[in-house]
Amino acid sequence: MTLRRHRHTFIVPFGDCDPAGLVFYPNFYVWMDEATWGLFRPVGITRVVINETYRAMGFPLVSSSLQHRAPARDGDTLPVESAIARWGDSSFDVAHTFTIDGQPVAEGQETRVWAVVADDGSTVHASSVPDDIKALLGAP
Amino acid sequence: MTLRRHRHTFIVPFGDCDPAGLVFYPNFYVWMDEATWGLFRPVGITRVVINETYRAMGFPLVSSSLQHRAPARDGDTLPVESAIARWGDSSFDVAHTFTIDGQPVAEGQETRVWAVVADDGSTVHASSVPDDIKALLGAP
Amino acid sequence: MTLRRHRHTFIVPFGDCDPAGLVFYPNFYVWMDEATWGLFRPVGITRVVINETYRAMGFPLVSSSLQHRAPARDGDTLPVESAIARWGDSSFDVAHTFTIDGQPVAEGQETRVWAVVADDGSTVHASSVPDDIKALLGAP
Amino acid sequence: MTLRRHRHTFIVPFGDCDPAGLVFYPNFYVWMDEATWGLFRPVGITRVVINETYRAMGFPLVSSSLQHRAPARDGDTLPVESAIARWGDSSFDVAHTFTIDGQPVAEGQETRVWAVVADDGSTVHASSVPDDIKALLGAP
Repeated sequence: MTLRRHRHTFIVPFGDCDPAGLVFYPNFYVWMDEATWGLFRPVGITRVVINETYRAMGFPLVSSSLQHRAPARDGDTLPVESAIARWGDSSFDVAHTFTIDGQPVAEGQETRVWAVVADDGSTVHASSVPDDIKALLGAP
Repeated sequence: MTLRRHRHTFIVPFGDCDPAGLVFYPNFYVWMDEATWGLFRPVGITRVVINETYRAMGFPLVSSSLQHRAPARDGDTLPVESAIARWGDSSFDVAHTFTIDGQPVAEGQETRVWAVVADDGSTVHASSVPDDIKALLGAP
Repeated sequence: MTLRRHRHTFIVPFGDCDPAGLVFYPNFYVWMDEATWGLFRPVGITRVVINETYRAMGFPLVSSSLQHRAPARDGDTLPVESAIARWGDSSFDVAHTFTIDGQPVAEGQETRVWAVVADDGSTVHASSVPDDIKALLGAP
Repeated sequence: MTLRRHRHTFIVPFGDCDPAGLVFYPNFYVWMDEATWGLFRPVGITRVVINETYRAMGFPLVSSSLQHRAPARDGDTLPVESAIARWGDSSFDVAHTFTIDGQPVAEGQETRVWAVVADDGSTVHASSVPDDIKALLGAP
């Protein structure tokens, strides 16, 4: 089983930086969410597939965290590399590393849960991540 | 029929300003959307009511525009006053005025459409705004 | 003089869509701002160059507008094509066209002004767009 | 020394929720940043005062984290209560608790550093938090 990694390179937008001239930090989490979808989408696990094929709601967050190593500014080219760091039964961790010119800028972690909606639509609960999805994403 | 106006006063957040120290302009539209919900919510027209009672999707945008009169910065107290400016059949206009210390900062306009989902969920189309909703919001 | 166009293709992020499943409309303006920087950056006109070489603040907005033609959802591939539509003396217009599979989704306009800071830093005022910048971007 | 707490109550905006109908999680961090400014601003420590009186850049993040306890949706009334949880020499922690109807929704932590700009503007480094600021905010 091969570990899938996702690398997304982008230029930090002007509007994502604050009056101090640095990235407004919640945007790192915005980019982490986008990068997590970027892990799943290329192997066919889009939101529509999750909703319709798997009758699941998605993978909402249990927790998240971020450590800053160096500042980032608008115009910086900022690759983020992401991978599944742990598969639990119904939860999993995603690790994200942001760099500029190969130097660490920030490291983030997300713990997410596979969430399904009850048949009558009334409640949402955690459920085992389907094995085929684990296989598509790869073991850490 | 009385015209309903909504006034929301807030302090411009640090994170909504850019490296030039000014409001990053798309945030005015974020605040306009929020102010439009602020017109509807107090008279009982929440998203859940729109979805469940009226079987409607909401009021997506047809167009929007904004004119800037003076700069705004983080920490500024920025009231926005909003009202329905026009009721069409299936569309309506909302006008928003942003001020600082009574002086105009920006004026925005939204044209929205009352959108319903087909019974089989497949398509979305414009539909007449229900009369009771027009009555709740008031004539311009 | 050749007209410079900028084309940026991206996938609509999950977090940029709302509970109706559509793009939360202010994000089109976020993408327009980013696309405008995308016109200037490749010819060397970055924020740092504007601030330091030209002693200018940037190009804040005078007005903006957007017309929606068709819905866009998370996961859609959404190219935006941008170009200078008008050069005034101190102001200029940027036109943005968003498409999905070649079909129009939204058309946006920005009117911006070349803004410089007074020598004592106290005030900001509009100033003529430098000719070399007009030449780099091209005539409409 | 009295511990200052800041409580900010707001209604979750439509545009801050995602296609699953839940708060798009990075917005909790946006609200945490805003709440941290809400701790400092009422005692006179605004960004302008930090920049001009203290010759400091602000208090950028070292790290942040968030644990989710229950879902939140657009239209929910969501108070956030914030306080300084630790004063170090040049760093400090802020703790944020989000509730709905008194029930926990999310708990967040920020570790920030007091950052000053070198006299020649070239570098940013951590520096001791001024004692009068610690006194204004209160000990945990």
